[in-house]
Amino acid sequence: MTLSIAHLGPAGTNTETAALAYAAHLTQTTHQEVLLCAYPNIAQTLHAVAYQEAQLAVVPVENSIGGSVAITLDSFWQLKGLQIQEALVLPIAHVLLSHGESLEQLQTVYSHPQALAQCQDWLERFLPSVRLRATNSTTEALQHLKLELTAGAIASHRAAELYNLPILAEDINDYPDNCTRFWVVGLQPRTSGTYLSLAFSMPANVPGALVKPLQTFARQEINMSRIESRPTKRSLGEYIFFIDLEANTANAGVCSALEELKDYTEDLKIFGNYNVLPLPK
Amino acid sequence: MTLSIAHLGPAGTNTETAALAYAAHLTQTTHQEVLLCAYPNIAQTLHAVAYQEAQLAVVPVENSIGGSVAITLDSFWQLKGLQIQEALVLPIAHVLLSHGESLEQLQTVYSHPQALAQCQDWLERFLPSVRLRATNSTTEALQHLKLELTAGAIASHRAAELYNLPILAEDINDYPDNCTRFWVVGLQPRTSGTYLSLAFSMPANVPGALVKPLQTFARQEINMSRIESRPTKRSLGEYIFFIDLEANTANAGVCSALEELKDYTEDLKIFGNYNVLPLPK
Repeated sequence: MTLSIAHLGPAGTNTETAALAYAAHLTQTTHQEVLLCAYPNIAQTLHAVAYQEAQLAVVPVENSIGGSVAITLDSFWQLKGLQIQEALVLPIAHVLLSHGESLEQLQTVYSHPQALAQCQDWLERFLPSVRLRATNSTTEALQHLKLELTAGAIASHRAAELYNLPILAEDINDYPDNCTRFWVVGLQPRTSGTYLSLAFSMPANVPGALVKPLQTFARQEINMSRIESRPTKRSLGEYIFFIDLEANTANAGVCSALEELKDYTEDLKIFGNYNVLPLPK
Repeated sequence: MTLSIAHLGPAGTNTETAALAYAAHLTQTTHQEVLLCAYPNIAQTLHAVAYQEAQLAVVPVENSIGGSVAITLDSFWQLKGLQIQEALVLPIAHVLLSHGESLEQLQTVYSHPQALAQCQDWLERFLPSVRLRATNSTTEALQHLKLELTAGAIASHRAAELYNLPILAEDINDYPDNCTRFWVVGLQPRTSGTYLSLAFSMPANVPGALVKPLQTFARQEINMSRIESRPTKRSLGEYIFFIDLEANTANAGVCSALEELKDYTEDLKIFGNYNVLPLPK
């Protein structure tokens, strides 16, 4: 049976590179046949799994420069039954593509908002007066190149090769250590793995309200590797907290911490245990 | 002497509305003359205050639907000496503007990414196949309307009046209770007010590392109204925590909590005490 993997497309996005890396890993370890399915945005990619159009999805969670991908977290909270299967960390290298002959010619630069944010200092230094325009994906930005000689697009090396587009500038990331963490998402709950992700809302905002859940983890010596807040969208000042733990639900201490957590939270969602896959060569 | 206030422009943005509300408050309470200065993006608005081009700036911090404004937090951490003078909460109502005659005609909708995010369900329901394009401000989105009859822009009622543009759809916010919190920023440290904002990075990510700073506040019965994490940009998994407290530095318990906080943090920045101004009528 062929396994379908949804991802943000079209071909050439960094998420597609992550999906290809995961597909290669699957083929190598399980000899499973894999079909990649491109979706126009991240929300639709996760919808595809929740409504069983695709079996898995690969979505970006956070970048070391741009931070969290809000739509991924919001969709995880809104949709039912999504479970993390694996995590994957990929180095990100941006290039500037254009049919123009020099930087001086450029008037507009298109890319995904995360890519624009990750090259913001470079853009301010070398292209201080260009207009920046956000697109749904780095690949979508390339559509503008054939129409406008004064347009540039920030995308990956792979996109340059795939669409045969000239590179005007390389290594335009503001920070050399630019990585994105992706989640592989499905509907099967996983119980093995060194990471555990969850999210909760809280009944009231009183002194120490957030301390209690965090103390629960600290008492069991569970390391919290990340905390992120997103608005509940009900009222300004009400949040959902997304937490990544180094923990496994097979451990009794972890189970007791999760049980205790129910007392301090209003709504609690467990997104499952998973491992971080080694970087593809 | 005229007081200069930097804000995200051009005229018609929600931030300009907040800056006008603050200017009206100033004129009423201190009879001070005020000059509003529009800047093309939020980073440059805060630079203007840090480098004394403007005396104050009004910047959005978080929206009840879209969440934190990352560039505001990142700029606060990077720039030296920025101090919050006041906070201001404004209701946000979006309208869809276009020279086109019906929704069916529209092919592209332009707006600021926060505005697009705040109307995302409405757009999916009524305009499922339009292209969404992000601009630097809601006002910048209006430039496209005169060139393209198939273009729509999401902006404020004030922008519709200011530029005499036809409203194609009203009340397009996904959630009726849509508010944005703004900070008024200057270089003078303020020591009066019921809110205190700060940010810190941490030396190491060990079990309970974040619990210790938060326990410090809980022990002194200081309510934490918000916690937000942003990447340090050094390495994936290292964060800066932005915290809002209901606290005043004149209080001995607060001083002792801040003193203790230094032991648990690597770099600690205090952005000052301030009040939330009452909503303008």
